[in-house]
Amino acid sequence: MLGSLPSFARLTAELGKLPGVGSKTAARLAFHLLRASESDVTALAEALLEMKRKVGFCQRCFHVAEESFCRICRDPARDSRRLCIVQEPQDLLAIERSHAYSGLYHVLHGALSPLDGIGPEDLKLPQLWQRLEQEPLEEVLLATNFSVEGEATALYLAKLFKEKGVRVTRLAHGIPMGSDLEYIDTGTVQQAVAGRREL
Amino acid sequence: MLGSLPSFARLTAELGKLPGVGSKTAARLAFHLLRASESDVTALAEALLEMKRKVGFCQRCFHVAEESFCRICRDPARDSRRLCIVQEPQDLLAIERSHAYSGLYHVLHGALSPLDGIGPEDLKLPQLWQRLEQEPLEEVLLATNFSVEGEATALYLAKLFKEKGVRVTRLAHGIPMGSDLEYIDTGTVQQAVAGRREL
Repeated sequence: MLGSLPSFARLTAELGKLPGVGSKTAARLAFHLLRASESDVTALAEALLEMKRKVGFCQRCFHVAEESFCRICRDPARDSRRLCIVQEPQDLLAIERSHAYSGLYHVLHGALSPLDGIGPEDLKLPQLWQRLEQEPLEEVLLATNFSVEGEATALYLAKLFKEKGVRVTRLAHGIPMGSDLEYIDTGTVQQAVAGRREL
Repeated sequence: MLGSLPSFARLTAELGKLPGVGSKTAARLAFHLLRASESDVTALAEALLEMKRKVGFCQRCFHVAEESFCRICRDPARDSRRLCIVQEPQDLLAIERSHAYSGLYHVLHGALSPLDGIGPEDLKLPQLWQRLEQEPLEEVLLATNFSVEGEATALYLAKLFKEKGVRVTRLAHGIPMGSDLEYIDTGTVQQAVAGRREL
């Protein structure tokens, strides 16, 4: 139907490659962009190219960075004796938003998943071991996701860090803030009772 | 949080301007594009610029076109005595996909909506009247949406076309294909009964 509009069809195809964007959404976005001002579309295109040109990963922790090292690794006020290990840069951002942690990070860019053929060498684990040779640690906070893969990765790392004599912690399981106990799944309630704290 | 990544923040802001893309989706898309290959991101940026450079609107019917006239207006096999009036290019594409219509089109690029300050001069209506001076018509098919604005536009146009002695038709209301009568709203069933056909 869009055969007479190759450039429009091409844009729709490119937009359809984005995650969560099917062919209908891609067409809707393309029609929106068709109607948008020249300057808006150019701004988007330039933002894409500029991001790709400038943003890479921190050489130390593999968080996103526009320079060799990310903002956190460059901050001398961060506690370099603590290391938080996360799967993705988004997870790091979630922890930063909590303002509850002041140590450094290491972003794995994934989790162990033997079924998908993802082993330790497919993550930023060799880089982590290399890093530890120069950085003495007191505590490692495992903040991988609470999925099967994330838990497996946490267990794998916990074993290795304990062998090195480092204190290993994991994000607490429990009842989310503002929740009705009635609606929380049994597994979470079990974890919350087991992990109960003195008041 | 992304203060140290101005180009990443800029891309997130630009993506957030797209319809249906909030700040969380924009961040997810930006992280996807960060990870995507250089060639994929460049392809998307170039598709945006190429579309904006090449695609405009048909001078006759205001459908999207890469040339002065769209594929349909350039097709001598189309029945020029019939004109279908739609709100948006997407609506035209929906009718084309049905393969049930072989006349020409006129895309209004909107519908009358006095509450939003959209009057006849804000749509492609002056261009429609101009067009009719040169193009004698036998039938006009009003295919504006079945919303308040679309119905109002259809009524407005029906009155004007009838004064000109043109046969005015409207897309049929009725039960959608493959539906269970039980679940169809009363208004649609009323319309389907009122519009019942001889078998």
